[in-house]
Amino acid sequence: MLTHLTIALDMMGGDYGPRSSIPAAIAAVNKHPNLMLLLCGNEAVINEGLSKLDSLNHPRLIIKHCTEVVTNSCEPALALRNKKASSMRVALDLVKSGEAQACVSAGNTGALFFMAHYVLKMLPGIKRPALISSVPTEKKQPVYLLDLGANVHCDAQTLFEFGIMGSIVAGQALDIAKPKVCLLNIGSEDIKGHEGIKQAAVMMKASPHINYQGYCEGSDMFTGKADVIVCEGFVGNVALKTCEGIAKLIMYKFTKALKKHAFYRLIAFVLRPIIKKLYKRVNPDQYNGASLVGLRGIVVKSHGNASSKAFLAAIEEAAREVERRIPEKIQATFEQIASKSEHPPSSISK
Amino acid sequence: MLTHLTIALDMMGGDYGPRSSIPAAIAAVNKHPNLMLLLCGNEAVINEGLSKLDSLNHPRLIIKHCTEVVTNSCEPALALRNKKASSMRVALDLVKSGEAQACVSAGNTGALFFMAHYVLKMLPGIKRPALISSVPTEKKQPVYLLDLGANVHCDAQTLFEFGIMGSIVAGQALDIAKPKVCLLNIGSEDIKGHEGIKQAAVMMKASPHINYQGYCEGSDMFTGKADVIVCEGFVGNVALKTCEGIAKLIMYKFTKALKKHAFYRLIAFVLRPIIKKLYKRVNPDQYNGASLVGLRGIVVKSHGNASSKAFLAAIEEAAREVERRIPEKIQATFEQIASKSEHPPSSISK
Repeated sequence: MLTHLTIALDMMGGDYGPRSSIPAAIAAVNKHPNLMLLLCGNEAVINEGLSKLDSLNHPRLIIKHCTEVVTNSCEPALALRNKKASSMRVALDLVKSGEAQACVSAGNTGALFFMAHYVLKMLPGIKRPALISSVPTEKKQPVYLLDLGANVHCDAQTLFEFGIMGSIVAGQALDIAKPKVCLLNIGSEDIKGHEGIKQAAVMMKASPHINYQGYCEGSDMFTGKADVIVCEGFVGNVALKTCEGIAKLIMYKFTKALKKHAFYRLIAFVLRPIIKKLYKRVNPDQYNGASLVGLRGIVVKSHGNASSKAFLAAIEEAAREVERRIPEKIQATFEQIASKSEHPPSSISK
Repeated sequence: MLTHLTIALDMMGGDYGPRSSIPAAIAAVNKHPNLMLLLCGNEAVINEGLSKLDSLNHPRLIIKHCTEVVTNSCEPALALRNKKASSMRVALDLVKSGEAQACVSAGNTGALFFMAHYVLKMLPGIKRPALISSVPTEKKQPVYLLDLGANVHCDAQTLFEFGIMGSIVAGQALDIAKPKVCLLNIGSEDIKGHEGIKQAAVMMKASPHINYQGYCEGSDMFTGKADVIVCEGFVGNVALKTCEGIAKLIMYKFTKALKKHAFYRLIAFVLRPIIKKLYKRVNPDQYNGASLVGLRGIVVKSHGNASSKAFLAAIEEAAREVERRIPEKIQATFEQIASKSEHPPSSISK
């Protein structure tokens, strides 16, 4: 456990803004005595929120006043150009300057991705950052899914790099040496999918840094077949949100079916805690947030409609990534690839 | 109800082949006295299966002997070239010649798509066929999702055409005049997604044939917000199979949680029928099959690991489509578009 940990928070982002970020910040410092939080946002609003919760002038809650907010409808390129004084941008700048070791935001994903890319820059040898999160499986260990929407389309080289970054994140989080990596596809046979995926499969097979296991389909994402599943951002985002949608649907139908008879209603009451816990577990992004990997710094994206509990979980996720030194480990691996030129990805992809 | 209905079945396709298709065919003719089935496949195998179930020489089960089978690992282009005597190809040829009004196969999706495209040809004015199926929602009515994997990537024009075809299928099936159509995207704001989707949105908004409602995300696919959801085949396939995967996961976790205490085990026993029914409902593709639309003929794709019950459901789905005259209605709408040139899609897409 690190003795000192400083994390910058975008207090204004997400559907609830300070209503969820302030209680989360207070809970985080109370729970983790080594944690210092830099609260980026409107000072008056934050002070009012802290005051209401008897936490005004907490020694480990430092306000960084920001005059602007990046809204959900803000075009990423415009946010980058015009929102230099926004809570999102200031939180990223604090990571860049080294004042904070990581940052957390529940704001506009596209804008956060654009800004983080611009402010923090890519680690050497990596083309694109990816959004990664873990999803539960039938086994004890979850599976790490990337990209979840940072890049709409991805070429073979990018998917290959995601495979390496995903392996490092999963390896650290699950404490395993060679995480099993699969490419998400529309069939398990070699002939399935588009050219980018087929080429990425060839590159992954040839790499000593990836324990490649072949294609997996949407239906076997949660069986524990893979520790890491790689896909384009559009596909990953739809897959993750579909999980959320179908989980809601199942809970809805189930509760409705149980309401039909008095006896079932009683059962529904008894089962409520189990159902609630289960629902949370199949909504990991909603709960823990997702991380942007491949950058020279740690950025955790909390879900847009994150509750204060979920925002707290995202802060704790950021803290764990600092402790695991994820960016340093990704950098070391890509340096090794570059120096040894053992299997230079670009030559394999041809 | 039509007085005569003839459907060709690919008896050899899918994971179970005749083991599921033979009982399904027998059940179908016993249930529907107006139905005649043309059983395409190995005569000896089919006769043996019919004999075991006391249905040899059934007057409405006509065997069309085929010497070849398209396997799951068969490359679609090779299947088209080399498997002219396969059960899949013969079933399609029977639709082409008019001997059958529709066909059903549980075989290799890619090969079926390729062959159907080649044998039956597209309806005039349509670029690509799409695979469509209904998915349950929180409302009474399901939502129709297309494309489910017939086309890996789709341009704006293709997505637009899918919107029209989906509207016709959903309109007929749900008996509504103006089905609500959404484009599946990674956010609800106009700025989200790739160029193809943004352009398709503009075209759908401008079309009198589509009641366009904007973007929808994976998380609100099942809320009943849309009657038709349009997406690329890769994305639709992953979304649908993710539903299957997460449904399995939830059932697994739920049953596991209930097994922890004797009391809960009792509850699990009581709830088993509800859980089973629910699981089936969130696996509609597995249960009813999906249809290829846009072709000059009706082709229903049953799930690869369809049980005989599921294969029967796919036969009944094909029968309903014949009765609803889906291809004729799609053709009439596209002819109207072409003749009026009210909003010629190609000019909008520029």
